[in-house]
Amino acid sequence: MDERNAIGVVGGLGPYAGLDLVKKVFDNTAASTDQQHLPVVLISYPGHFPDRSAYVADQSKPSPVPALVEVLRRLDDVGCAIAGMPCNTAHAPVIYDALTEAMEREGRTIRLISIIEACAEAARRRDPSIRRVGVLATSSSLKGRLHSIALEQIGLEGVRPDWDYQEAVLNPVIFDETWGLKAQSDPPTEEARNRLLDGIRHLRERGADAVILGCTELPLAVPEPEFEGVPIIDSTDALARALIRATHPDKLKPLPEALAEKAEG
Amino acid sequence: MDERNAIGVVGGLGPYAGLDLVKKVFDNTAASTDQQHLPVVLISYPGHFPDRSAYVADQSKPSPVPALVEVLRRLDDVGCAIAGMPCNTAHAPVIYDALTEAMEREGRTIRLISIIEACAEAARRRDPSIRRVGVLATSSSLKGRLHSIALEQIGLEGVRPDWDYQEAVLNPVIFDETWGLKAQSDPPTEEARNRLLDGIRHLRERGADAVILGCTELPLAVPEPEFEGVPIIDSTDALARALIRATHPDKLKPLPEALAEKAEG
Repeated sequence: MDERNAIGVVGGLGPYAGLDLVKKVFDNTAASTDQQHLPVVLISYPGHFPDRSAYVADQSKPSPVPALVEVLRRLDDVGCAIAGMPCNTAHAPVIYDALTEAMEREGRTIRLISIIEACAEAARRRDPSIRRVGVLATSSSLKGRLHSIALEQIGLEGVRPDWDYQEAVLNPVIFDETWGLKAQSDPPTEEARNRLLDGIRHLRERGADAVILGCTELPLAVPEPEFEGVPIIDSTDALARALIRATHPDKLKPLPEALAEKAEG
Repeated sequence: MDERNAIGVVGGLGPYAGLDLVKKVFDNTAASTDQQHLPVVLISYPGHFPDRSAYVADQSKPSPVPALVEVLRRLDDVGCAIAGMPCNTAHAPVIYDALTEAMEREGRTIRLISIIEACAEAARRRDPSIRRVGVLATSSSLKGRLHSIALEQIGLEGVRPDWDYQEAVLNPVIFDETWGLKAQSDPPTEEARNRLLDGIRHLRERGADAVILGCTELPLAVPEPEFEGVPIIDSTDALARALIRATHPDKLKPLPEALAEKAEG
């Protein structure tokens, strides 16, 4: 147990997203006995993280950075080589870069794996013919072009929803206090699911060959890997696979046959 | 984040049992926002735990104690006040007492909450008219009378299966390498479920008023809280509630109305 090979999960953003990432690491691990599973540490301190979107929009608001740095320190202390943070919005540079810089400054070896880059990579591996990738995400993530920048870095193109449609129809899917996914996710409301499915069609009409569900709440309402012929990338699943690939590539389960037909082995 | 109030989970025994305990802590927490959820740390190091039943039967076999002590140390280091270990079999005194003694000897304040005592307590709280409690568990746990001793300590009585029936019919539900729950749990086989349901009837015929599923694998095949009128206690759920009650009693969600009718508030 001295090896520094554990996978860290920054939980609490929210609690169930952290849990879902751990589950997806287990589900994507090629293991037929308990003992063959990978070492994973989840630290879920939900009380300490102020709203990420609010801080990204206005840095005079309470910052989630100090608490996130503290969680990363503890994951590092406890033996994690890498860590994943299952919250796309928290990957805005004003948060994410502050975290990686803090770890570097403190001489810590733990490496944060980006969920945004994992999404782009998952789209590329899913099917080499995919060029234009639609993004469903918080308005905060879309305004920062988080996924689009990562897609461009590997030669793909991001497709975002029309802005009016995003604000009126899609952003409330996450945040609406009555029927949104943060308010009600077990089960999600029909309203939330229908709006997301309409959003996928909207992005296809705008030229998307595939769609990234670029917020960890979204797969709760749209768990399927494909909808009306459009491949769907679940950001949490993409991050789980990136974490395994980075530390234990021999343990990465192949994609299910249906998805792997044209793609990665 | 300086308070020592986190709930620790000794994961990896097996990996999905650890995950299930974290989920049940979240599910049993009264919280309407992310921020209201409790601090939880899961350390899942499945590669380091030799077979618990084998060690309980023969202490010349490889011991899981050193690795479990190391996980408890790390949970203590990272700020956990208490910890739960979602494996009934690992609560045999030869393992469990060694863990609590090691923490005491090292002057560590982390307190291990017993899943066995949590089961007994959950039976008592479920319905005050329950007196005789059936136990479905590994043969290892039954031979050690783990649950029966805990039930007797609070004035209840344990009811175990007939030994021949346990060895021939029930123990293989967990361990059979083809259709047992350790080999195939998602979904569990009909064979496993049918044998457990028959086991519940068997215990009722032997006088049980309720049945403890005293192995964390069993609720995978029998998730319902009641079967043919017999109240069923899920050991992982009981432990989750005991962990919340021990650290944040104000955050413990009341039992669902259907279960709480006669019992705890």
